[in-house]
Parts: sequence; structure tokens; C-alpha cells
Amino acid sequence: MGRVAFIGAGPGAADLVTLRGARLLAQADVVLADALIDAEFRTLAPQARWIEVGKRGFRASTSQPRINALLRRAARSHALVVRLKGGDPSLFGRLDEELETLAAAGIDCEVVPGVSAALAAAADTRKPLTRRGRARSVAFSTAMTRDGALQARRGADSEVFYMAGRQLGALGRALRDAGWPADTAVSVVSRAGCADGLHSSHRVDDLARAALLHAGRPTVVIVGAAAEPLAAAAPAAAPTLAAAPDSIPLDRI
Amino acid sequence: MGRVAFIGAGPGAADLVTLRGARLLAQADVVLADALIDAEFRTLAPQARWIEVGKRGFRASTSQPRINALLRRAARSHALVVRLKGGDPSLFGRLDEELETLAAAGIDCEVVPGVSAALAAAADTRKPLTRRGRARSVAFSTAMTRDGALQARRGADSEVFYMAGRQLGALGRALRDAGWPADTAVSVVSRAGCADGLHSSHRVDDLARAALLHAGRPTVVIVGAAAEPLAAAAPAAAPTLAAAPDSIPLDRI
Repeated sequence: MGRVAFIGAGPGAADLVTLRGARLLAQADVVLADALIDAEFRTLAPQARWIEVGKRGFRASTSQPRINALLRRAARSHALVVRLKGGDPSLFGRLDEELETLAAAGIDCEVVPGVSAALAAAADTRKPLTRRGRARSVAFSTAMTRDGALQARRGADSEVFYMAGRQLGALGRALRDAGWPADTAVSVVSRAGCADGLHSSHRVDDLARAALLHAGRPTVVIVGAAAEPLAAAAPAAAPTLAAAPDSIPLDRI
Repeated sequence: MGRVAFIGAGPGAADLVTLRGARLLAQADVVLADALIDAEFRTLAPQARWIEVGKRGFRASTSQPRINALLRRAARSHALVVRLKGGDPSLFGRLDEELETLAAAGIDCEVVPGVSAALAAAADTRKPLTRRGRARSVAFSTAMTRDGALQARRGADSEVFYMAGRQLGALGRALRDAGWPADTAVSVVSRAGCADGLHSSHRVDDLARAALLHAGRPTVVIVGAAAEPLAAAAPAAAPTLAAAPDSIPLDRI
């Protein structure tokens, strides 16, 4: 009987996996990978048999019962099975169902966390999810339920919606219904952390305009305080401040 | 003029940094590191000058203006300065202030995301932050404001409180005041993701009992649906199910 390591792949780019995840991948006999995982990841486990389990948003794909069964079967005939999941396994990854099936089968497992897409989106856009004073809480949820219903919330200073790319116009309306003012800042980021990542800035009432740019790409939508640009924008936007004297005395470093 | 790379170190253990972060560390001339960063990280950048900037929770430490000034000064005389921040830079890392000071000084920078402590806590305890149906949203905030006031919230199915180790008894009372029932599950995890990580399970009304175990350690507190154990617990707890037949037909893998 082998064991299963759930590894958070991060938002897409292979170099956003953790060292711990990469080391386990290098030892894996079998890798069961989400379809959204970049092909580049295979270079981290060239010795392993790779099985794409085909979860890709809400598209018809490998069923969860079948993934669960594949996991159990693989662990019975291999020493180390890696279940490579997009983002972080504990956030929107249906890890609960896979852990339960392994526990019921008495199969040992471990979970290696990863970079969730919202964190990569904040890094790409240089818009921190929390900020002193005005952005003290941030909530994560999915914009669409598994039965395809759209949902929006306003329960924190900022709200991040995963799997939001499909219905941005409808999400904008749902955000109004949830109490967000029309002019609330919205940041939309697709393929966060990847070389082909894209981001755009909107308001709740013109969120529909983001649809074309991010069509067909894994997308997170950030609403509220964390979507606002910082007081000082990118360096190019503040050239007149570049020569400002540093008035704080310092030791030389 | 050099550039600054903000790198999320993850929750503590050096092998929870990303490959991208490790590669930049290996090229760094100077590393400005939070005090909570494990000494083991130095092996990832032995060539660099390491400066501990001494942020450690709310303890008296290097002031933020001084950190900002050190960053600007270092970038003026070195090609690559790494600002190594615990967890993920965009969550509770005061990244906003450091980005603004660099932007104002015209210094180029990038942000490499990291594993935030809540994700490592969920991995360690095998208690996913989101779960099908009953744990659809999760919010992150700090239990204490920067002026030392305690705050609790109930705005999502699960709430994660960072920097919560100091006043767990008071936090339990604040959670009651925020509307959480007395028997709500609470998971407390300190040094998540590290070899010396500890976790304990509580209810809102006995959260004070966690104080001794986690004293003096970086701690996250998870409240609500995400703190409940999964239906099937760890393998050892369900031995009678270990031989359950696999009724789903499968190709051999």
C-alpha cells in the first residue's frame, strides 16, 4: 500500500510550486493532475506516469467518484501517488471528498499547500489583499455554485470570487444586489502568476467589459478595497517623486 | 539602480517557498528578512548579505519607516534586493506601504506570492478551508488591530484569524459577541507547515484552553465550517472501512 501526496500546483506556472511539492513530484510513481496544470510541470516528474483527470472548471470532465477511485487504485499499486491540484488544495479543490475517500480506504496521505490564485493575482497587479486601515478582511468564495447558479457576497472589506470568468456581466449585477456600490473598484485577473497573465481594472457597473479579455481563461475577480490601486502607482506613474530626498537617517547598508 | 523582489517565504519552513522565490534568493545581493523567517532560509541565499528587519508580530521591532528606508537605500546600491516576508506578501504583510515607498522612489519591483499560513494550517490538519455545500466562503482577517484592540467577525462560512495567539480567551468571547454559537468548531494551528507545527481542536466557548499549547508561536485560528473534522477522519480512526470493496469499475492504472 502506497501513500498519496496532495500538492498545490499554484496558479499555473510550474515555478510557483513549492520546493516541498517539487521534491515530492521528483519521487512520484504516478501523478494525477488537474487539466489546468501546465505541461511544463511534467519536467518536474519525468519519471512518473501522468494521468490527466480532466477537471476544468465546470466543463464535463472526469467525475469526482472516478477521480476518487483512481486515487485509491493508484495508491494500492504504487509507493507514491501525487495528486496535483491547481492553486491550493484546501481552497476550492474538493480536497474534502478526496481525503474522505482515502481515509475510508485506510490510505495514508499528506497535503502540501500551494499558492492560491488570489495571492498570485494580488502579486501580479501589486494590489495587496489587505492594507493598513482600509482593507482589513478579505473573503474568498466561488462566483458560481456547482449547479451553475451565480452568487455574490459582501461580507468583508474585499471579496475574491474564483471561477468567475464565465458570467462577468451577471456577476456585476449580482454584486449590486449584494450591496456593493456601482463605482466599487473591481480587479479581474486571469492566468495569474503566468507569463501570459492578464489583468484589467473595472467598476462594479462596467464589469461586463472584462468578459472578452479574459474569455476562456481561469479568472479571479477581486472586489472592494483590495481592488483599488495603491496611492503611489507603478514607478513610471510617479517620475517626479523619483528624486525625492531620503530624509530618514540610516546606517549605510 | 537595482530592483526589489518581494518574496513570500510561506509559513516558516524553507521548503514551502516557491521555486521562483528560491531562484531569486539564489541571485540576491541583499535579503531583508522578517524575524519570523527560519534560519534555514539562509542556505537558499548564502551569497547575500542578510539583514533581519525584526518584525515579529506586535513586538517592538524595526519601524515600518525604517524598513522602507532600508529598502530604498539597498536598491540604490545593489542589483537585486530581496524582501523576504513571512507567508504571502499580499496578506497582512504591509506590502502596500513598502510598494508605495518604492514606487515613489522610482524603484522597480516584483512580487512573488507565497503560501499563506491559513493554507498550511488547513493542509496540516487536513481540514480544507472550503467544502462542498457547507463551507463555501472563507474570510481572512487579523484578530488584533495594529493598536492592540481585539476584533472578531462572522461574515463568511468560516473565518480565519491571523496573529491570534496572544489573547485566545478574549478572542473566544469576541467570537460569541460576533454571533458564533458557543459550540462552533475552532481549529488552532501554530507554526503551520513546519516540523514543529502544533494544532488543537476546540469550541468557541473553550478556546482559552488553546493558549498554553500555542504560547509564543505564530498562530492562526480557524472558526466555523472549515474547523470541523471531515466525515471520515484520519485512516487510523476508520480501520473497519479499510477493506471496503471498490465498486466502481476502472481501467487498470
